[in-house]
Amino acid sequence: MAKVTAEISMSLDGFVAGPNQTLDDPLGAGGDQLHEWAVRLKTFREFHGQEGGDVDSDDELLAESVGSVGAIVMGRRMFSGGAGPWDDDPNASGWWGDDPPFHKPVFVVTHHEREPLVLADTTFTFVTDGIERAVELARDASGDDAVGISGGADVIQQTLDAGLLDELQIHLAPVLLGGGVRLFNENDGRAQRLEQTDLRESPTGVVHLRFRTV
Amino acid sequence: MAKVTAEISMSLDGFVAGPNQTLDDPLGAGGDQLHEWAVRLKTFREFHGQEGGDVDSDDELLAESVGSVGAIVMGRRMFSGGAGPWDDDPNASGWWGDDPPFHKPVFVVTHHEREPLVLADTTFTFVTDGIERAVELARDASGDDAVGISGGADVIQQTLDAGLLDELQIHLAPVLLGGGVRLFNENDGRAQRLEQTDLRESPTGVVHLRFRTV
Repeated sequence: MAKVTAEISMSLDGFVAGPNQTLDDPLGAGGDQLHEWAVRLKTFREFHGQEGGDVDSDDELLAESVGSVGAIVMGRRMFSGGAGPWDDDPNASGWWGDDPPFHKPVFVVTHHEREPLVLADTTFTFVTDGIERAVELARDASGDDAVGISGGADVIQQTLDAGLLDELQIHLAPVLLGGGVRLFNENDGRAQRLEQTDLRESPTGVVHLRFRTV
Repeated sequence: MAKVTAEISMSLDGFVAGPNQTLDDPLGAGGDQLHEWAVRLKTFREFHGQEGGDVDSDDELLAESVGSVGAIVMGRRMFSGGAGPWDDDPNASGWWGDDPPFHKPVFVVTHHEREPLVLADTTFTFVTDGIERAVELARDASGDDAVGISGGADVIQQTLDAGLLDELQIHLAPVLLGGGVRLFNENDGRAQRLEQTDLRESPTGVVHLRFRTV
């Protein structure tokens, strides 16, 4: 059965977005620092239809990671960008533009029913039956490749808490954001030991950590 | 001037002690997992007057770390153990026994004035003028060696927020505690970029991360 993996950049103080998120600044104050290691890379730029970019050990890691995933699960906020727009306009097309950088089937966990949305080679399917169903559909769509849980934090927590997550990759950025969205809220029931399976150092000072749930 | 360093074990979800701390269980539920990498080591056991213990790369790291420190700053709770006992009995001798494992001058940040306490070769000096004064006294006592901020989380945050911390070493344990005491509470004013200066992997799966404030 397809492996379920999650991958996200986190600050040393545990935040995946900085304080004072807005629609214009969905990463919050300082949040862009979490992604500096990635946005400069060839693989990242290619996915976003841009040329150039660095080719180094980080690029190799990102290409590996992107290449291993056959379908994606994300939360509604990650689809529509920040809080709110879709609530106001259920037909909003998200914030990823006409050619979203996924190029794979994407399953959006949401409370709002909606017909699938096709944008270039990315199809967004909206799942209102919860995380289990979204992962099940993504598994069917991913073939032998992994299902990638791409965030936000709440969807990663849901996947972990439902016992659906096989692997968690954290890109730990050497920065303190002082607030924002935590990857891990308090939840006693989540307590568990993980197995650290991979560790790589980025030229940028970020540390790439990979864990297996056991 | 003596360098100021802090060192602490933290869970992947950001806790330095688990939920439901009590006087009998000051590390909280699951909190002992944070220290498994250390308590098995020869250097750790020696400091606690015990024989034996593992000698490996972790032991080397711990010996380096312990050897670099000439004086220690800690919070009142770390001195007296959990919440409360000293408030009830200002003459309590802490929870470290007759031969505390420090063997160096220790400066305890507290609101309660008290005469210095000498236990074997450890002298505890109680500082009621705040973190700056405690660090200043520890600097005077440490000679050319570093001042080690040994916790808890609140004292490390105070040192960081006062701009007094030069280096932060985090032993990141591959475990989710789901609650307890966070190393980093929310504080927008703390936002800053750090420089990652060292990265070592423990045979136990813990990752030793060292950062410099910039």
